[in-house]
Amino acid sequence: MQTEGPVGDALANVLSDAASVRDGTVADYIPELAHADPEHFGISVVSVLGRVYSAGDNTVEFTIQSVSKPFVYALALSELGLETVARHVGFEPSGNAFNAISLDPDTGRPANSMINAGAIVTAALIDGADPAERFERVRRCMSRFAGRELAVDERVYASELATGDRNRALAYLTLSAGVLPRPVDEAVEVYFRQCSVLVTVEDIATMSATLANGGVNPRTGDEVVDETVARHTLSLMASCGMYDHAGEWMVRVGLPAKSGVSGGIAAVQPAEFGIGVFSPRLDEFGNSARGVAALTALSEDFGLHMLTHPSEPRPAVERTEVDADGRLVVALRGELEFLAAEQIVHHLGSDQVRGAVTEGGLRIDLSGVTRIRPAAERLLAVEIRELVRSGIEVIVDDPEGVITGAAAPDGTTLPAG
Amino acid sequence: MQTEGPVGDALANVLSDAASVRDGTVADYIPELAHADPEHFGISVVSVLGRVYSAGDNTVEFTIQSVSKPFVYALALSELGLETVARHVGFEPSGNAFNAISLDPDTGRPANSMINAGAIVTAALIDGADPAERFERVRRCMSRFAGRELAVDERVYASELATGDRNRALAYLTLSAGVLPRPVDEAVEVYFRQCSVLVTVEDIATMSATLANGGVNPRTGDEVVDETVARHTLSLMASCGMYDHAGEWMVRVGLPAKSGVSGGIAAVQPAEFGIGVFSPRLDEFGNSARGVAALTALSEDFGLHMLTHPSEPRPAVERTEVDADGRLVVALRGELEFLAAEQIVHHLGSDQVRGAVTEGGLRIDLSGVTRIRPAAERLLAVEIRELVRSGIEVIVDDPEGVITGAAAPDGTTLPAG
Amino acid sequence: MQTEGPVGDALANVLSDAASVRDGTVADYIPELAHADPEHFGISVVSVLGRVYSAGDNTVEFTIQSVSKPFVYALALSELGLETVARHVGFEPSGNAFNAISLDPDTGRPANSMINAGAIVTAALIDGADPAERFERVRRCMSRFAGRELAVDERVYASELATGDRNRALAYLTLSAGVLPRPVDEAVEVYFRQCSVLVTVEDIATMSATLANGGVNPRTGDEVVDETVARHTLSLMASCGMYDHAGEWMVRVGLPAKSGVSGGIAAVQPAEFGIGVFSPRLDEFGNSARGVAALTALSEDFGLHMLTHPSEPRPAVERTEVDADGRLVVALRGELEFLAAEQIVHHLGSDQVRGAVTEGGLRIDLSGVTRIRPAAERLLAVEIRELVRSGIEVIVDDPEGVITGAAAPDGTTLPAG
Amino acid sequence: MQTEGPVGDALANVLSDAASVRDGTVADYIPELAHADPEHFGISVVSVLGRVYSAGDNTVEFTIQSVSKPFVYALALSELGLETVARHVGFEPSGNAFNAISLDPDTGRPANSMINAGAIVTAALIDGADPAERFERVRRCMSRFAGRELAVDERVYASELATGDRNRALAYLTLSAGVLPRPVDEAVEVYFRQCSVLVTVEDIATMSATLANGGVNPRTGDEVVDETVARHTLSLMASCGMYDHAGEWMVRVGLPAKSGVSGGIAAVQPAEFGIGVFSPRLDEFGNSARGVAALTALSEDFGLHMLTHPSEPRPAVERTEVDADGRLVVALRGELEFLAAEQIVHHLGSDQVRGAVTEGGLRIDLSGVTRIRPAAERLLAVEIRELVRSGIEVIVDDPEGVITGAAAPDGTTLPAG
Repeated sequence: MQTEGPVGDALANVLSDAASVRDGTVADYIPELAHADPEHFGISVVSVLGRVYSAGDNTVEFTIQSVSKPFVYALALSELGLETVARHVGFEPSGNAFNAISLDPDTGRPANSMINAGAIVTAALIDGADPAERFERVRRCMSRFAGRELAVDERVYASELATGDRNRALAYLTLSAGVLPRPVDEAVEVYFRQCSVLVTVEDIATMSATLANGGVNPRTGDEVVDETVARHTLSLMASCGMYDHAGEWMVRVGLPAKSGVSGGIAAVQPAEFGIGVFSPRLDEFGNSARGVAALTALSEDFGLHMLTHPSEPRPAVERTEVDADGRLVVALRGELEFLAAEQIVHHLGSDQVRGAVTEGGLRIDLSGVTRIRPAAERLLAVEIRELVRSGIEVIVDDPEGVITGAAAPDGTTLPAG
Repeated sequence: MQTEGPVGDALANVLSDAASVRDGTVADYIPELAHADPEHFGISVVSVLGRVYSAGDNTVEFTIQSVSKPFVYALALSELGLETVARHVGFEPSGNAFNAISLDPDTGRPANSMINAGAIVTAALIDGADPAERFERVRRCMSRFAGRELAVDERVYASELATGDRNRALAYLTLSAGVLPRPVDEAVEVYFRQCSVLVTVEDIATMSATLANGGVNPRTGDEVVDETVARHTLSLMASCGMYDHAGEWMVRVGLPAKSGVSGGIAAVQPAEFGIGVFSPRLDEFGNSARGVAALTALSEDFGLHMLTHPSEPRPAVERTEVDADGRLVVALRGELEFLAAEQIVHHLGSDQVRGAVTEGGLRIDLSGVTRIRPAAERLLAVEIRELVRSGIEVIVDDPEGVITGAAAPDGTTLPAG
Repeated sequence: MQTEGPVGDALANVLSDAASVRDGTVADYIPELAHADPEHFGISVVSVLGRVYSAGDNTVEFTIQSVSKPFVYALALSELGLETVARHVGFEPSGNAFNAISLDPDTGRPANSMINAGAIVTAALIDGADPAERFERVRRCMSRFAGRELAVDERVYASELATGDRNRALAYLTLSAGVLPRPVDEAVEVYFRQCSVLVTVEDIATMSATLANGGVNPRTGDEVVDETVARHTLSLMASCGMYDHAGEWMVRVGLPAKSGVSGGIAAVQPAEFGIGVFSPRLDEFGNSARGVAALTALSEDFGLHMLTHPSEPRPAVERTEVDADGRLVVALRGELEFLAAEQIVHHLGSDQVRGAVTEGGLRIDLSGVTRIRPAAERLLAVEIRELVRSGIEVIVDDPEGVITGAAAPDGTTLPAG
Repeated sequence: MQTEGPVGDALANVLSDAASVRDGTVADYIPELAHADPEHFGISVVSVLGRVYSAGDNTVEFTIQSVSKPFVYALALSELGLETVARHVGFEPSGNAFNAISLDPDTGRPANSMINAGAIVTAALIDGADPAERFERVRRCMSRFAGRELAVDERVYASELATGDRNRALAYLTLSAGVLPRPVDEAVEVYFRQCSVLVTVEDIATMSATLANGGVNPRTGDEVVDETVARHTLSLMASCGMYDHAGEWMVRVGLPAKSGVSGGIAAVQPAEFGIGVFSPRLDEFGNSARGVAALTALSEDFGLHMLTHPSEPRPAVERTEVDADGRLVVALRGELEFLAAEQIVHHLGSDQVRGAVTEGGLRIDLSGVTRIRPAAERLLAVEIRELVRSGIEVIVDDPEGVITGAAAPDGTTLPAG
């Protein structure tokens, strides 16, 4: 863990500014939560390369509460697949509060897995002989996301169990609607335990970074869930993660996120990093007031909004020249996404290239390319197949192995040369 | 416009597959819409470099209907700013259908600008002496998004005017709640006209590409709205664009989008391209059935989901070496986002670099870099400032001008050398 | 009008006690209403024999507002019949406030004619060439209920027209749902005028007494509506008249009633009297705070609750004896309802009577009977038919003509002798 | 029990006509209920004098289900009083179905005691050391209403217990809202047992007749609840007894009633009789289809609607004459309610009477009076007090004891002499 350097400094600055937020109140509907120190405030960032940056109270443990929901959802998706999960719980924002009933009047499905009713059903989908075994699968999965063995705060669990009547009501509603696959007592036991798991902001940041990294924990290399599951989970966080504040969150912060009643927030910059933040005082929507302030500032200061428009990139075609062997060389560079691929394909189809290709053929040089996105790889594969079909010899030079092998719908792949 | 090459072929394939969808019915609640040819089906993609690819019925005109909503929202944001607009209409998904009432019980604000009640209020925020002048501003703005002069289908407008009683009801509800700033008749006149503007899929694709391109029309170079407005608009499309199907759309397609009752859908791959699709038969959510099928297939086949995890990029530091002048050269490459910058900063702070810097100083070579994202530029700026403060001479070599000048919160910028 | 005697004294006492209620606020959502004197307080009772008792401000005029609703509903029932009206508006309490939307999601019908949406539709059902003619029918009917020509307060009407946007919204919702049979502007014009009619508490008491008296104005003898319409109207007042306070009103007061936003309340003791009360300060449900207090006290003090259990009546058979002509005489007395008739029938079928009937036959003496309810008359008719069939001569002696001629389902009637 | 004579014949006719109703389906949400014979159809009427009339399947036992709700509500009112009960459950129609959630958003109280959530809370208010003891109190009270010992159908109870998850959900919602005073398992056990009590239509009719009779079982003379409790219970049945059909029921039938999912309906003609009807097929509102048809026909044929307007009664003052002792005699007759009393008071204050009173004084002859309602007794008491104060000697002759002793607010009572 590093607290120095520009990233650590940036986090410390954000924390210092957000500490001026003194609004909000510590949740007390679970009595044990009311004992939290309202001044605790910590933030942590973990990149998909596994480096950790923190500021503030980064070692304080707190119960994860609803921040657990996306990770258990990811486990359920891994075990059962999206379609099976979708028969029990929906994907839609409910427009209502976290403890709203929000069951579909026709199907009885909870609106989504990020509200309590949906999270109880989601946890109940996890396989196992009994609640203990099922929770152990949940705990183990959360631990793999975090990269260390996580434990339950038994006092908070006992407090949830003693006061969780509204959640039992939600569970019975889903049971009577036919979408809860377990007895209510077993379902809420696993859910309450899942909410009572102790974490630090670094745990949450690591868990988030695992989602950012396509399901692979960047600190341990553990493949916790596959890329599709990570993507589906991030999608649900994007639309439903911040309760009835989700739309404004998307406008102002623009990162998939999930908050919890103990004051934690997980946020994800896909393909880049995960963030964990913790401050117990909650705003009117049930989100950590300082946490929201910190993430809003971070997003604004560093342009992290996932819909931010970047500056126009340099052309993907770095140069076109004839090499010593008489081959026409098209040297590409940077990250090749759809846009770059479209440029390249346009270039390869142009008279400039078609007219200049000699008998030596064409060499496509990928040595300056840092990454190829699937859309780009598929477009290039199809274009090169056409060049070959038209009689042109094509060599693709990929010294660092950026080609992933992604196939176009018709099976065409880029020839790695 | 191109229909050949890999992109055109891909669109043609997607269209051909999606044509097997025969579900859904043509909207008839506005009588004129019922005359649409249910077999019309077209798609168009416009890249942020301005190239156009189409397949199917790309020249058929249809009324834009609700696909107009994000563009008028963008105009309102441009004219009044986010905070003023937010006093009249919210950002939150309503969980309800497009013509639901969905007014906040406390403030009376419609849930968001993508449902009818919110769109009527949003259009009414546009300034002007009378409805004609206000609509002309709307039409002109939409035309700039499309890159050509758009016109109203007067028959559809007359039909909307004759049958739009539910929309008048929504307008009166917002008026009585104090959030509609105009008389109802004036408000719905502008709204009905806006819905009756005639477009083709290429228009919608161009309009979407303008949002993808930070507000600059890539075909005309016209700066229609600024980058912040474009981002806010895409954010709202992401959370609320597909009615009560928004959550599943985010899971399955993952592109900000907006659909309309005439069968059009606009979708945006930020920083890359816009898509327009058109097929009049609507599914149960009021979205074009074939349009949804086509965009789902396109997203899956080409990995366009904005939360897709790409393969791991090659390192951003291409090489570290001593040049002829005795300077330590750190050559960077590709697209520098936060993650790359974090690698670079880590590298610059490492013993390998610090120990190797000679009196000749340090040269940071950006010639292989295709783009720098703001977060990255700010982190690099701060790190280089620290290197300089510690007595190291640093030259930043930026032959193609990728540095944008984005300043860190303390004002530090990258020295362009 | 009398203010002395036990009834006038009772009203004065109730008024004096209820004047201690100082809660509530004068309605101001229609600006003109805010000018009402909050201290005005009057009450009036009109019996079905046409006598009037009043206390307090019995000559102050105020606009009738929602107290008009049952009377216009009665007019609509008279003109169109229950089934036709029921296709446009329901009978069910909505559980919601007076200005709630409460439209049936399937049929679009407003929940009932006592909420604004339903009252607007109900007024629009009245026939007429234009709004002026339709309102004139409404005004004339209300005037007949009141027994004098009522007029509109043009300032209040103008104020309603200027600020009635929520009502316009409700009207447009019903129009778009297909249940409003007029253009919105015409519908709300009639409704706003109907609400702006000026009345005193004596007017309201007379209007209520007309409903109590089966539709006949007891002061003028005018048959305003028929008995069935009066009963249907009272039924709706019983279940829906006091907004979302209707259930508690039934428990605590137990009289069909209707309140209005200007502070008036109409209440009905069926077959006995009507009450009008007026005090502008409204409680949280929108009912006159003092009016509710006065009517609650009146109901409790005088046992007016329509579900109150009376003491056990003296037997309906006063005596059974043999008269000078050797006929067995069964003398009946009091009010004959089902219960009395059942006693009588039981008595007539008993061995005591059957054994004692001589050849002189049976004489049934109704001279002590004050009234026969239909159920009783039908039961007696059938029993006497059976006696006759079994060979007994029966004479029914009805000197004061209490027999109404109500026929049993098979057509049997009581022979009036 | 009698099946002959006009009352029995009327019931047989009504049953025969209603048997043509073949709509509706037997409830199956509790599996045991699905075994009911759909052709069973019985009706019973019990008068407040204790006579029983029946037709059809009057000895078939079925579980009482929701028809138990008013009787347990009456028990709760007896034990705790209206105000205490009202802190846990409301009085308002919900506008929703029987198993709707309908909790007040502010207080968490269920809308009323006739919907499931409210009935569960109401049953839980009954005192007792454990569920067995509490249910025994409920069973004993229901038995006293019925006049015989009622027993539980243990198979239906087991079926309810096994499938009652929605009711458990409702119970947990009320528990978490702080209005359920028992653990959920205990609360639903008592409620499920209460619903599983076996009754016949004669039981239901007797229970209803007890409510009609001011709380006194007319067959046993047992004072089950007091008159106020009976009235409050009838009030709630009037506004909330027929689920979301309550308003139309009031219009078309006009008797306080309660239906249950097994096909039973209890209805009450206050002060006259109770009705029980049973037929298992339910209409869309969950009410017995044939039961509704039978009660509608009965109400129409016999004019039972409680808001029916009767014919005008003969004058309450039968004659005014001077007796042998020189006293002015005013002879009254029939049932004296407010209206009659108002006539009498008016008469007593008239010149005709005042001028004719001699030194012999005034004799008021009640021998022809069958009953005095409290309002009438109080008005007369006040008027006679005034006559006495003005120096007139007044004798009230009440040979059959119709005077109840009801006191006016100031304590004045009628002198019985």
